[in-house]
Amino acid sequence: MAHIDLGLDEQAHPGINGLARYRPETAGPLLDLADTLLHAPHPTLTPGERELIAAYVSDLNACAFCCASHSAFAAAQLPAGMPVVEQVRRDLDAAPVAAKLRALLRIAGAVQRSGREVTTDLVAAARAEGATDLEIHDTVLIAAAFCMYNRYVDGLGTVAPADPAGYTRAAAHIVAHGYGAR
Amino acid sequence: MAHIDLGLDEQAHPGINGLARYRPETAGPLLDLADTLLHAPHPTLTPGERELIAAYVSDLNACAFCCASHSAFAAAQLPAGMPVVEQVRRDLDAAPVAAKLRALLRIAGAVQRSGREVTTDLVAAARAEGATDLEIHDTVLIAAAFCMYNRYVDGLGTVAPADPAGYTRAAAHIVAHGYGAR
Repeated sequence: MAHIDLGLDEQAHPGINGLARYRPETAGPLLDLADTLLHAPHPTLTPGERELIAAYVSDLNACAFCCASHSAFAAAQLPAGMPVVEQVRRDLDAAPVAAKLRALLRIAGAVQRSGREVTTDLVAAARAEGATDLEIHDTVLIAAAFCMYNRYVDGLGTVAPADPAGYTRAAAHIVAHGYGAR
Repeated sequence: MAHIDLGLDEQAHPGINGLARYRPETAGPLLDLADTLLHAPHPTLTPGERELIAAYVSDLNACAFCCASHSAFAAAQLPAGMPVVEQVRRDLDAAPVAAKLRALLRIAGAVQRSGREVTTDLVAAARAEGATDLEIHDTVLIAAAFCMYNRYVDGLGTVAPADPAGYTRAAAHIVAHGYGAR
């Protein structure tokens, strides 16, 4: 049960969904930011790649709801599906992803610990694999944003359903419609 | 120097200011969120109290630019000014703030470590001092949001001016106009 009274059925509105209904004034910019970072057109990073960064950081933060959600959203939009998402979460060094994406995920992992952990070496390694300024910017901001979403969802003690079916249904909606704020 | 080429004079646009100009698509929701949380009318928490939560978390994250900025914004809007901001940052237990605000700042400090650090005991302690659901919600989200802003600003290696004059000038603008996105 959440730390505050959301005034709704928490099982029907798990994780950030109940919070968004409780406080629509903050839900607007929160959903708009997620849509811009993860779903809106991007010159080089696919929605699946951006959702993979979100899932990876959510796993590092041990946020069950966000990790299950964004793993499902990544899997639905990556050609290799859930197996590659699970491999990245289990062992980034060994996971079968392109070298540029691996270097961006390493930057995301540094951001999860602290912004000051992003070194010039990590940035240079990503550039050496072809990463652009925009890709580095968006990777840092996606990772930073999930350090917010994860803390928001867990800090208010919201529910994370164990049944994967809800996350799969949510993925179909996100793939088709995005985060609904634009 | 920032990790990416922002295409502008970084000294003239330090911290998040240069990033906002570099990527206006994400700046919109980021500023809108800050305005809603810190500047927009709130039934019980003053802008100074909300900025104090932002300054406290930014200090815990050792983000020089955000800590200097939001300390100045809090000081400009709290009757006790910068001395109380510095006392909260130095020793929350001993700082001369009301018991409810101290309990909310303890929740913010837990969020800075992890959302899962917010215990029912911390929430009950805030309620015992009169904290409302909305105050607990907004405290958690302000603290979570600064775990994002801090990582964004530091993760991209932006400049934090040492001269306090710029932060004082920025405070006057924020007090008068907010974060400019609404």
